[in-house]
Amino acid sequence: MEAPQRVSPSTVPADHPGINELFSLLAYGEVAAFYRLTEEARMAPDLRGRINMARMAAAEMGHYELLRSTLEARGVDPLPAMIRYAPALEQYHRLTTPSTWPEALVKTYVGDAMAADLYLAIAGSLPTDIADVVRSVLAETVHSQFVVAEVLSVVNSSGRQRSRLALWSRRLLGEAVTQAQYVLAERDELVDLVLAGGGLGQVTDLYDRLQRTHSERMGQLGLA
Amino acid sequence: MEAPQRVSPSTVPADHPGINELFSLLAYGEVAAFYRLTEEARMAPDLRGRINMARMAAAEMGHYELLRSTLEARGVDPLPAMIRYAPALEQYHRLTTPSTWPEALVKTYVGDAMAADLYLAIAGSLPTDIADVVRSVLAETVHSQFVVAEVLSVVNSSGRQRSRLALWSRRLLGEAVTQAQYVLAERDELVDLVLAGGGLGQVTDLYDRLQRTHSERMGQLGLA
Repeated sequence: MEAPQRVSPSTVPADHPGINELFSLLAYGEVAAFYRLTEEARMAPDLRGRINMARMAAAEMGHYELLRSTLEARGVDPLPAMIRYAPALEQYHRLTTPSTWPEALVKTYVGDAMAADLYLAIAGSLPTDIADVVRSVLAETVHSQFVVAEVLSVVNSSGRQRSRLALWSRRLLGEAVTQAQYVLAERDELVDLVLAGGGLGQVTDLYDRLQRTHSERMGQLGLA
Repeated sequence: MEAPQRVSPSTVPADHPGINELFSLLAYGEVAAFYRLTEEARMAPDLRGRINMARMAAAEMGHYELLRSTLEARGVDPLPAMIRYAPALEQYHRLTTPSTWPEALVKTYVGDAMAADLYLAIAGSLPTDIADVVRSVLAETVHSQFVVAEVLSVVNSSGRQRSRLALWSRRLLGEAVTQAQYVLAERDELVDLVLAGGGLGQVTDLYDRLQRTHSERMGQLGLA
């Protein structure tokens, strides 16, 4: 994934209240992703698939530990701060429950990329040390690479599966954007953080960027 | 947990075929424990409990990674080697499915201790570098400490719960011993490994040790 293209120094102070909200949102997102991955792993056809999902889930908890300790270092009690983001994140996962193993794989791959985009876009306008936490949490791991080969093999063997998975992938993007808007509408501190980083143009850039990365990911999975 | 009391040098060669079997058994055990912990976490009454279970599950996958790379370094393809241990381990978990959150907590705590005992007893007669892998995989983490406070609070508030959980704890030990015997009966290489380490006395010591650690654990949980 390309790095955010902002090179201007941060305009957001390190004690901006939106930063704690962002970390809390990320932290709940990691725990929610952990449990969703392990649930969706039930559809895996074999031990290899189950192990790959478990490895990805374990990586989410590694990210969670970093966020938790960062929140604590900033004087925030993580659990009550995180739980405010439960409705939006659980709703996203409820509305995008896969019904097949290829759908679960696509959700993993596309969902990870969308989350990374959302957070990296905001990281571009954060103080360096805080942006570093966000980036290391979202650093792409090699784990999700196993998804590409498996999805390509399904897509190449069935045009019907390709169409179904392409629609599924678009639905994932739509639901993610809906929930992101819902979160921004509810949390003034997060809106302030986005606006402090670059104004409304930043928000428009973010949606453009989401759409662009999503298209790239669909191409990689043979769903373009 | 006290270290195994064997100080005599190893009598087992590093290429004993039972060693690969032991690592494969441990590896499947980690993956099975990962999925069981995440499933049993559904009974958690709150986010804190779910996060604690997820952290323990993630630690199991860290252990799995070490075992997988050790098996690969020894020229073993991990998945086919591991899957032979699926029946015994899945059967243990099926027969010990908790029906309440305190039962899930007790299973985590007592089950971890029993597994550590089983493996550490064997590690005592392994070559040093191989014993080190086994010990680091089974190193007790601080994670399961959250269990003690929660179980003690349940046990101290209800004599009926205490009796129920004490019975449950004994059942966990019984099923574990049954499945361990089943595994040994099926896998000659593992029996050879145990016998090479100290003969039949070693096996008797192991069961004594299991019983002793189990009693200690029950005491810690207020179930003695």
